[in-house]
Amino acid sequence: MKQLLLLDKDEQLLRVDRVVKGMKAAGLDAVLLADNASKYYLTSRVYAGYIYITSGGKVICAVQRPVELNGPEVAYIRKPEELPSVIGVMPRSLGLELDTMSYNNVERLKAVFPDATIGNASAIMRVAREIKTDTEVEMIRESGVRQERVYRRVPHLYREGMTDIEFQVEIERTSRLEGCLGQFRISGDTMELFMGNIIAGDNADAPSPYDFAMGGAGMSPSLPVGANGSEIKPGMTVMVDVNGNYTGYMTDMTRVFSLGDISPEALKAHECSRRIHRELAAMGRPGTEARALYERALEIAREEGLEHLFMGHRQHARFIGHGVGIEINELPVIAPRSRDVIAPGQVIALEPKFVVPGTGAVGIENTYLVTSGGWTCLTNAPEEIISLR
Amino acid sequence: MKQLLLLDKDEQLLRVDRVVKGMKAAGLDAVLLADNASKYYLTSRVYAGYIYITSGGKVICAVQRPVELNGPEVAYIRKPEELPSVIGVMPRSLGLELDTMSYNNVERLKAVFPDATIGNASAIMRVAREIKTDTEVEMIRESGVRQERVYRRVPHLYREGMTDIEFQVEIERTSRLEGCLGQFRISGDTMELFMGNIIAGDNADAPSPYDFAMGGAGMSPSLPVGANGSEIKPGMTVMVDVNGNYTGYMTDMTRVFSLGDISPEALKAHECSRRIHRELAAMGRPGTEARALYERALEIAREEGLEHLFMGHRQHARFIGHGVGIEINELPVIAPRSRDVIAPGQVIALEPKFVVPGTGAVGIENTYLVTSGGWTCLTNAPEEIISLR
Repeated sequence: MKQLLLLDKDEQLLRVDRVVKGMKAAGLDAVLLADNASKYYLTSRVYAGYIYITSGGKVICAVQRPVELNGPEVAYIRKPEELPSVIGVMPRSLGLELDTMSYNNVERLKAVFPDATIGNASAIMRVAREIKTDTEVEMIRESGVRQERVYRRVPHLYREGMTDIEFQVEIERTSRLEGCLGQFRISGDTMELFMGNIIAGDNADAPSPYDFAMGGAGMSPSLPVGANGSEIKPGMTVMVDVNGNYTGYMTDMTRVFSLGDISPEALKAHECSRRIHRELAAMGRPGTEARALYERALEIAREEGLEHLFMGHRQHARFIGHGVGIEINELPVIAPRSRDVIAPGQVIALEPKFVVPGTGAVGIENTYLVTSGGWTCLTNAPEEIISLR
Repeated sequence: MKQLLLLDKDEQLLRVDRVVKGMKAAGLDAVLLADNASKYYLTSRVYAGYIYITSGGKVICAVQRPVELNGPEVAYIRKPEELPSVIGVMPRSLGLELDTMSYNNVERLKAVFPDATIGNASAIMRVAREIKTDTEVEMIRESGVRQERVYRRVPHLYREGMTDIEFQVEIERTSRLEGCLGQFRISGDTMELFMGNIIAGDNADAPSPYDFAMGGAGMSPSLPVGANGSEIKPGMTVMVDVNGNYTGYMTDMTRVFSLGDISPEALKAHECSRRIHRELAAMGRPGTEARALYERALEIAREEGLEHLFMGHRQHARFIGHGVGIEINELPVIAPRSRDVIAPGQVIALEPKFVVPGTGAVGIENTYLVTSGGWTCLTNAPEEIISLR
């Protein structure tokens, strides 16, 4: 038998308390969570089943699989209809993850709790997870250190005549050998992401079905994003945006490479991205509105005459940054209509990028920890465009 | 501008017609589909937005992203509330993918179609996609040929002293260089799968949170499946179950490797798996009940005194086979309570496996095409346990 809970007691209480606060604010007696991200946050383990939390802070882990988990909070069930027998007092109001749980699963649970008013637990969990605990920050920091190690090796992985996808495969291998877990949790209905993307030259301007900063045609219309198999050639940029998930917590970093010199316009845009990073990191003190950061970034791009290339050329992304943690797209969102406010403990991936026709994508992405004193960069590979030869 | 529809006209009509048949049987005027798998099936393209199909066979692709798609069926929308303006006559009854679409997205669409009765399109799509068209079969066949090439290279990727995860990374690289697209579409709420799994020795007996035949502790409690970093040693088996997605359509194949000899019991169980394959492939003529195949497999395992190791040891999987196609888990399901019936055009991954304590996982998985004449294997790598040294 193994203990289900892998978090130490204080850490678990801290996380449960955040969820309890959110459920009280929403007027809910309890939440019943099924998302892997939620279960991992609250137990540091992924299992099939549910976690049930009352506004009094009582936790019940209703487990379907795997066998042999143990602990005072563990109750095995075969199906959701058995939940009432393990939770005791039935809640009058119950939060479910209505943004991610399928319609039919919610309806099934409604029938299990016929007298409960149903509320939305998705927003509660997003807000609870927005501010990272010290333990979470350490796991993110570790992810950043290992991702940095991979990025420092990237220039040595290039061989003359390589295509973008061949280069990507060697970077993926290096990342996996460094301990990358492979899978990236992503929130949202139809977004699909493999390990990240390498985008060379004008492939950056191929519009994507996802709300990604850069597109790429992909290798197949079934996965229309990223590398398209074109050979890396002098004059192109090669944008490397391969995600870091080494600990169950992610960091996001992008760097740009080339074969020798690239156009002055692309160099200028790359430096503009770095300037946006410096200015926003200095400006983004706790209390700053996320949308003010977006507006300032756009203003800088405009000042430098690069607005038309900012966050895409034929198609533009609608954000320049996002929280990261257990999932690659958490709060806050740095976007024009965001209502988020910068606060200590947020971890933010900032990615002001440009697409320069004839050259490709430029700009960097870093993951920052917000503290009361300012932003700390967790992804410290060199920021200049590095030549691969 | 690019044509949205990548299927030729006859092929698209054939697929739309299957969906229309299902919607008529369910008494629906129209379906509105958002799953990437559904859009890919009906257009051979993935985009952000919806595909709307009426029982009269009219198709409208309501696209949010990417920009620049073209065709008589294409209408751009910014949000689902604009759907009525592009579909014309409002349906009295409408099918949505209630098994996969989030509760809140369904509620939002219900408000867009306030007068329509809502039905479930998920089952309609699963049934439509169960029987593959000739074009689909060719894409699956091609995936099998390329997966076979990768498996034939597997023995040459092993180096002395390797851990299971190091071996896995080299197999992943080989598969990616052969054209594997990386991402695997999987149906179901909380199942997560990277490129597949390598399971060495007793790690096969670590129970998994997923309904997988074999478990594996994984490298992190955040992704508790597959390789756990243990060194590959003499006497262990190494089960390689790395999925093939080379064309947007998948094949599923498992083979077993070792360092020299393994226990007689494990060898016997491996041969028993091969026997189950031979008998089921001969028995599975169109018209056979899927559950009869499951029962026969279990009977064979029992005859050979291996029932307690069949489909797991500490934890047992509840199926021995499943359809594959755009997703890795399609119809039919070869399981005790399955109501599916074998029919020409199904593509079935059969995976009778055993966990032998002290040795590891044995047994093979093949993907078969069902024809009126019988089952044709699409994954033809050698089936014996191959020594890596």
